Amino acid sequence: MITRLDPTRRDETARPATPVAIDRARELVEPALHAAVDLLTDSRMRLIAGYQLGLWDAAGERAPGGRGKAVRPALVLLAARAVGGRAEAGVPGAVAVELVHNFSLLHDDIMDRDVERRHRPTGWVVYGEGQAILAGNAMLAAALETLLRDDPHHDRTVPALLACVQRLISGQSADLALERDDTAAIEDVLAMEDGKTAALIANSLELGALAAGADTAVVARLAEAGRLAGLAFQLVDDVLGVVGDASVTGKSSSSDIRAGKRSVPVVAALRSGTPEGDELADLLRAAPPETDVEVERAVRLVVTAGGLDWARREAERLLAAAHQELAAAGLGADTATHDAAQDLAEVLDFLVRRDW
Amino acid sequence: MITRLDPTRRDETARPATPVAIDRARELVEPALHAAVDLLTDSRMRLIAGYQLGLWDAAGERAPGGRGKAVRPALVLLAARAVGGRAEAGVPGAVAVELVHNFSLLHDDIMDRDVERRHRPTGWVVYGEGQAILAGNAMLAAALETLLRDDPHHDRTVPALLACVQRLISGQSADLALERDDTAAIEDVLAMEDGKTAALIANSLELGALAAGADTAVVARLAEAGRLAGLAFQLVDDVLGVVGDASVTGKSSSSDIRAGKRSVPVVAALRSGTPEGDELADLLRAAPPETDVEVERAVRLVVTAGGLDWARREAERLLAAAHQELAAAGLGADTATHDAAQDLAEVLDFLVRRDW
Repeated sequence: MITRLDPTRRDETARPATPVAIDRARELVEPALHAAVDLLTDSRMRLIAGYQLGLWDAAGERAPGGRGKAVRPALVLLAARAVGGRAEAGVPGAVAVELVHNFSLLHDDIMDRDVERRHRPTGWVVYGEGQAILAGNAMLAAALETLLRDDPHHDRTVPALLACVQRLISGQSADLALERDDTAAIEDVLAMEDGKTAALIANSLELGALAAGADTAVVARLAEAGRLAGLAFQLVDDVLGVVGDASVTGKSSSSDIRAGKRSVPVVAALRSGTPEGDELADLLRAAPPETDVEVERAVRLVVTAGGLDWARREAERLLAAAHQELAAAGLGADTATHDAAQDLAEVLDFLVRRDW
Repeated sequence: MITRLDPTRRDETARPATPVAIDRARELVEPALHAAVDLLTDSRMRLIAGYQLGLWDAAGERAPGGRGKAVRPALVLLAARAVGGRAEAGVPGAVAVELVHNFSLLHDDIMDRDVERRHRPTGWVVYGEGQAILAGNAMLAAALETLLRDDPHHDRTVPALLACVQRLISGQSADLALERDDTAAIEDVLAMEDGKTAALIANSLELGALAAGADTAVVARLAEAGRLAGLAFQLVDDVLGVVGDASVTGKSSSSDIRAGKRSVPVVAALRSGTPEGDELADLLRAAPPETDVEVERAVRLVVTAGGLDWARREAERLLAAAHQELAAAGLGADTATHDAAQDLAEVLDFLVRRDW
């Protein structure tokens, strides 16, 4: 039901080239991620965590597949470098955000009854709901343990991660509450997405900057840049949830429409004050559209009521604002930080600029 | 399905008088617990957390009922005093263990499909499963935030609490895996109960001692005393799950037998090598006993095969060992710490010595 912030869904078909900084970050973070999972004392929790992270298959054997692109860890490392630190300083934070991201995916899949992720059965389908809830909890605890053990700046990063976790929880809670809520305003949906998606992107930059010892003002600028780009990223996801082609998104076409989800384009259409908006409200009132004909009609109404345009314009505006925040942070005084700041800007672009 | 470590279940009928130290601790901890819940930024999470903690009813109105005895917070405060600190030093830890205890109850009730706790509907029944999972997560995060904010010794207490949380998770995971497992050995069940029940009792004493700045050796003794008494407490729960009267336990009589649970007395009987043990194995093989006649027969077989006696003897042995650990910690050099150590011993006794 829930629009995912999972950048991997288009692994096979994504057209923009993956920035090289993402692959470099993965090489650096991968061993530390394995080490963090290895430190889980319970073998069942280790197995489930590693499966969720794509480290191995359901039986614990090495097997390709199920990996995310790991954009968040890359953002942590780039933020550390962009404020003048070494990429290595960001590794504990990178592991922590990847663990928290996957903790939330594992739990959300249970709540949303999603049965597939990254072309594999979801954790609760493989291991049962109870064990999946527990493994999510263990991953959250492991994220904090990683920072406490390996990040010398954990006095700043641990509270920042916990505050982010509270925002993630709040966003997912709002998402559950908003499902098929006909009274939702765009602001409600945006506030939900701010927690559900933008908070962890913001926190990725925040943890990197904190781990490199950046000033509070610079940390706040980077976090805000991440938040703005994260929200833009979610709006693109929302657009793809209306008009996305199954072959491109890896989900059924118009998946959010089929799920009856009140995403930003849908709510923008419903609140547009147009005849098409009113017609859409009538169509969606009782239940999500079921037949392909109904789905196509709903998509057409969202488009003609201006819902997609609104979301696209807002995503563009947010991305531009994110770049302004980055610029305002005053990064790039020397060549190394300048390059890192450029890489960071490129990854934020990559996050948002998909085919839409 | 799961035997609870909830000391409140016998609120109405508990015969041993509640030690006065427990009531005193509650008075000291109560405002801080309210403050911790108030600091949850999400109003829905606040509502559910406060309901789970018994601070208010399902609609958020002040209403009596649903409160635990709060034995764990009392243990934190007494441990702080027993090592020479002030009770106030233990308050953040007391709030943290109460939050973690209730986080685990909220999640366990979902996994076990338990519909009632402390004479009220469980959290997931009232608010839905997804919101209950999220509120549990928020309470776990809030426990850590409380220590970071209010406990000057959080460099020691936060890692200790996280290690405990991993043990709790591991114990609950084993409990789910052991359900109706006919190959389980007593050691497997004891290891599960060590995580599921004993770890947080141990951690309660540990956090109190750490918050008061105690030496590592003293902290370890107190934690071990808590672990031993916690395990004894669980064995008593297991005994009551076989022979407990509904009017006394607040659950259906012989609730663990009806649930087909492989608790310590049941497994001790199954592994006794007696004809009654073999007969019990045949009876339980297919499914839990359903009729009252079958339940009574199973109870009689557990008794005659020596399962109850084994569990009772083991609980007595563990409680005695707990007191030895307390004594070995060398507490009570002056009057104040001596009194606190005595109160601590009394609360451990209270935890274990119920009617059985």
